[in-house]
Amino acid sequence: MNKVDLSRYDNSWYKPGGFIKRTLWHIFSMVFVNNYLPLPMIIKTNILRMFGAKIGKKVIIKPKVNIKYPWFLSISDHVWIGEQVWIDNLADVSIGSNSCLSQGAMLLTGNHNYKSAGFDLMVQPIILHEGVWIGAKAVVCPGVTCHHYSVLTVGSVATNNMEEYGIYQGTPAKKIKIRVID
Amino acid sequence: MNKVDLSRYDNSWYKPGGFIKRTLWHIFSMVFVNNYLPLPMIIKTNILRMFGAKIGKKVIIKPKVNIKYPWFLSISDHVWIGEQVWIDNLADVSIGSNSCLSQGAMLLTGNHNYKSAGFDLMVQPIILHEGVWIGAKAVVCPGVTCHHYSVLTVGSVATNNMEEYGIYQGTPAKKIKIRVID
Amino acid sequence: MNKVDLSRYDNSWYKPGGFIKRTLWHIFSMVFVNNYLPLPMIIKTNILRMFGAKIGKKVIIKPKVNIKYPWFLSISDHVWIGEQVWIDNLADVSIGSNSCLSQGAMLLTGNHNYKSAGFDLMVQPIILHEGVWIGAKAVVCPGVTCHHYSVLTVGSVATNNMEEYGIYQGTPAKKIKIRVID
Repeated sequence: MNKVDLSRYDNSWYKPGGFIKRTLWHIFSMVFVNNYLPLPMIIKTNILRMFGAKIGKKVIIKPKVNIKYPWFLSISDHVWIGEQVWIDNLADVSIGSNSCLSQGAMLLTGNHNYKSAGFDLMVQPIILHEGVWIGAKAVVCPGVTCHHYSVLTVGSVATNNMEEYGIYQGTPAKKIKIRVID
Repeated sequence: MNKVDLSRYDNSWYKPGGFIKRTLWHIFSMVFVNNYLPLPMIIKTNILRMFGAKIGKKVIIKPKVNIKYPWFLSISDHVWIGEQVWIDNLADVSIGSNSCLSQGAMLLTGNHNYKSAGFDLMVQPIILHEGVWIGAKAVVCPGVTCHHYSVLTVGSVATNNMEEYGIYQGTPAKKIKIRVID
Repeated sequence: MNKVDLSRYDNSWYKPGGFIKRTLWHIFSMVFVNNYLPLPMIIKTNILRMFGAKIGKKVIIKPKVNIKYPWFLSISDHVWIGEQVWIDNLADVSIGSNSCLSQGAMLLTGNHNYKSAGFDLMVQPIILHEGVWIGAKAVVCPGVTCHHYSVLTVGSVATNNMEEYGIYQGTPAKKIKIRVID
């Protein structure tokens, strides 16, 4: 038919958690996480854990962090989540130890099938292995795996997997060099 | 003279609406639209209509949407406006039915003449025809028309018109493929 | 060792100002600058000056501007700071007269040494000379100097110095043309 008809959109198969849980999290997020109040880290991490997030040791969560569903989030030890980071996790997001999401970075797990008239929802997990660095205002797209020590530079958009020790730049991000760690 | 002198800036020709109307909208926007309060959709759409926006049926407006002037906004049926979308409409913005602005997308209608010493304001409308998809964190520049079913991918910047069924990517966005809808 | 170990991170050499000053500014920023309250310009500029910023005459600061440390900020006369601009100045940022940062632009001064296992913090100043225009949602990276009348287009990322009268686009931004001012 070559047309999009959003009245045909059907995401009834997608069950991200009960209405009460999601509403409660929405409010807790506003009050304790997604704002600039100078709250102790321990309050933020414990509230995230209360809503099902797995949070390792020495995790730093800066102000105004936007997390869609904590119960789909797993963060290992020594991870930094920068100011205004947006983890839009309709699906599982897993962040390996010693990784850093810089300020304004975004992890995007939701997509739509632009080939279907009903614009079907598609959700895909994101995996960050150990020691990954997502630069400021960079975006990781649904389904992407960022392998060990890969880097996405400032403002770049990763649409494909990033190889171990690869440094990626651009929209879409291309591998531009190798990360050598002394 | 080869210099810019912003003391010469003169936008007195630009009349976006009375001071009281703009101030009232600024406050209503803060309280009812541009925030994370879990407000019923009907409240948001009716407030937008009260300020002159044309809003069709089954329009979805997610949290933290930033609209400059509702009286310059026209949205058809079955349109989705994602979280943190920024419609910076100093001029008319028209969004066709079955279109989707994903989270963090921006429609930009204001520009400056960088060739003039007075840095003259220029405003140009944006038109999205039916079934257009503006991806997350993508930006549509002033004066751009997005024809039927065109797609702007995540984080891309559209500086020129987008053709029917064209899929565009990059900064500036180039056509990379054709959208085939089954 | 080819690994990153954030437990080895040591930024103790970095002294951005006392804890009380930084906390006070954090709160003042939330209440007076980094929000949508329709506050008189004079209040914002005077609060910034109170915290050590040098602010010239006829400076315009739009709503929801995010400034890290005002005591590292110097703004000349007739400068415009747009809505949602983010000046993330861990180091000195200097903005020349008649310059414009459009809505959503970001100046980024902090970086990490991705070659060091300890992911060392690196901060570098940003200098905007006279009449520079940073477009909407564009990002200027640490250490970049934007020479007189240079322009960074919408959504572009400047990773290197921008020449006088140069117009730059892309991620990373390349010079695409010359700015001629009549």
